[in-house]
Amino acid sequence: MANLKETIKKIDKIDYSLAEKTQKRLDSLTKPKGSLGKLEELAKQIVEITRHENPLIKNKVIFTMAGDHGITEEGVSAYPKEVTPQMVYNFVRGGAGINVLARHTGARVIVVDMGVACDLEPHQELVIKKVSYGTKNMVKGSAMTREEAIKSVENGIEAFEEEFSSKGIDIVGTGDMGIANTTPSSAIVSIITGKPVEDVTGRGTGIDDKTLLNKVAVIKKVISVNTPDANDGIDILSKVGGFEIGGLAGLILAAAARRVPVIIDGFISGAAALIAFKLEPKVKDYMIAAHSSVEKGHKVTLNFLGLKPLLYFGLRLGEGTGAALGINIVEASIKILTEMATFQSAGVSEQAN
Amino acid sequence: MANLKETIKKIDKIDYSLAEKTQKRLDSLTKPKGSLGKLEELAKQIVEITRHENPLIKNKVIFTMAGDHGITEEGVSAYPKEVTPQMVYNFVRGGAGINVLARHTGARVIVVDMGVACDLEPHQELVIKKVSYGTKNMVKGSAMTREEAIKSVENGIEAFEEEFSSKGIDIVGTGDMGIANTTPSSAIVSIITGKPVEDVTGRGTGIDDKTLLNKVAVIKKVISVNTPDANDGIDILSKVGGFEIGGLAGLILAAAARRVPVIIDGFISGAAALIAFKLEPKVKDYMIAAHSSVEKGHKVTLNFLGLKPLLYFGLRLGEGTGAALGINIVEASIKILTEMATFQSAGVSEQAN
Repeated sequence: MANLKETIKKIDKIDYSLAEKTQKRLDSLTKPKGSLGKLEELAKQIVEITRHENPLIKNKVIFTMAGDHGITEEGVSAYPKEVTPQMVYNFVRGGAGINVLARHTGARVIVVDMGVACDLEPHQELVIKKVSYGTKNMVKGSAMTREEAIKSVENGIEAFEEEFSSKGIDIVGTGDMGIANTTPSSAIVSIITGKPVEDVTGRGTGIDDKTLLNKVAVIKKVISVNTPDANDGIDILSKVGGFEIGGLAGLILAAAARRVPVIIDGFISGAAALIAFKLEPKVKDYMIAAHSSVEKGHKVTLNFLGLKPLLYFGLRLGEGTGAALGINIVEASIKILTEMATFQSAGVSEQAN
Repeated sequence: MANLKETIKKIDKIDYSLAEKTQKRLDSLTKPKGSLGKLEELAKQIVEITRHENPLIKNKVIFTMAGDHGITEEGVSAYPKEVTPQMVYNFVRGGAGINVLARHTGARVIVVDMGVACDLEPHQELVIKKVSYGTKNMVKGSAMTREEAIKSVENGIEAFEEEFSSKGIDIVGTGDMGIANTTPSSAIVSIITGKPVEDVTGRGTGIDDKTLLNKVAVIKKVISVNTPDANDGIDILSKVGGFEIGGLAGLILAAAARRVPVIIDGFISGAAALIAFKLEPKVKDYMIAAHSSVEKGHKVTLNFLGLKPLLYFGLRLGEGTGAALGINIVEASIKILTEMATFQSAGVSEQAN
């Protein structure tokens, strides 16, 4: 059984002292100093996180965590909630966007049932960490109990730990699936960043203007009914969160505790990152933001965390699709660090001045 | 022998009529419509370029074209000109940034001597298309003759055609090596876009403030001494260009003539793209800009061509490094188009409205 407090206790600051040494090494490679920009920044961060001079990026793993949301009753999504289990089956069969992009990147996809509202058929690619059969309708009270919130985070930690101990994880990507889950995400982002609901609520899978107005009103009501404590990550998660969001927060904490870099996908993963950050601020430096989502609350989230996204691709699919592309780029940055010739080894003259 | 006029004659408009059909297909895949943003745009463009419903991205090739520049005499670069042949040897031995990133992307690197100022040792990875032993110092007159300018473009076409006929090319990236080659590139960009030299001249490999002032003055002098005709691509190339820039312009034209998508690397490749565009404007739609370079003239170039870069990574290495990353992303976009399940095949409910 995973324990949240013990996991948090294991999270150290990343080793900032390694940045200078790594930059010197990058400067010895056959290229003008700093000329690989973001790739050099990434390589340094990965060394600081892993404390390895030559970090391995062999075991690349994306966790796509799924859960259902009672709030679908309020008409906040463009899709019916049946799509959550249907997409889980699509994931385990390899037909979804995340499967295609994870294969492209050479990453494994671990699909986790954190709280889908039905029993799923067993499948060897599916990990069951179900906390409950979907959250409650949070306009009427808490989405889940405080115990369930802790359990969702601890189940996320467990999912990471099981894969880490059995097959190994060198880098991890976050991914989500859950019809209506931009609604709890917007609520979380509004509460933690202090921004108005209107400024952090978008069209999710593609709702129209009328549905968007309703969504904003629903989220405002959710917050006023539940009055979560902005400084208590578990309180926020239990009152206005979701099981897959709790699971992803746990995944992020577990990765940091094991010194594994975490590539944060889009908006829902960002909300989970905020919960993880509230539970342990040191976790932030283990994060790399894969992309800047179309969801406007995502930019607010990244600014709050001080993360600069790698890609500006107008993505809004979730599942870990942005994380898969991000892992690919991080891997490239480590190959630059470890595979390039030096000025000396290649017999190339150095800069004159 | 390649012929410039014949190559240009073969360049058709891309097939815009395929965009709608391809978007419909993308909309049938298990994801909200448009939710993969830039990846969907890329997939459509590749279909329009190749006229293939399921484009192959198997033979990925980056041409790194090298040339020397007489203008190095004027102290415009941070590196001595010996670095050009030294880096060519680094390329053929696999130790440079482009080798690392091309391996990451699964692309072949074809290194081409377009005009290095010495005889290079033969190597099976090195293609000799040398026009001359470096350009002349263009503050004193034309960088090359008009005949040499045409030959550099035709040699670039030949390099493409030889690889295309022997091993095949499904997608091509441009890359450059040539100490001081941001100087001719800035001159070309200033002339074609009409922007002042100051606005399109940057620090190249990393020159200091004083050297930058000198570089701007040198480029202004180059332009006033040579007075190139802004509407004649060959005149511009011959008076203020470079052999690798001409070669890359030829490469771009040859790719368009064969309906092969071209991933444009950074600033020097951008200058070559401008020359190719002056020779045949239809070539523009075959181009994808890999990234937005640190060189400020690059943004001016992309705006002029109406190209939106894929990546904002602060790169300024050249060699095709950005193109290698760009090809990786284009390949991902085609896998999305061709490998994802449809709503129907996966049994997933479609959007309600």
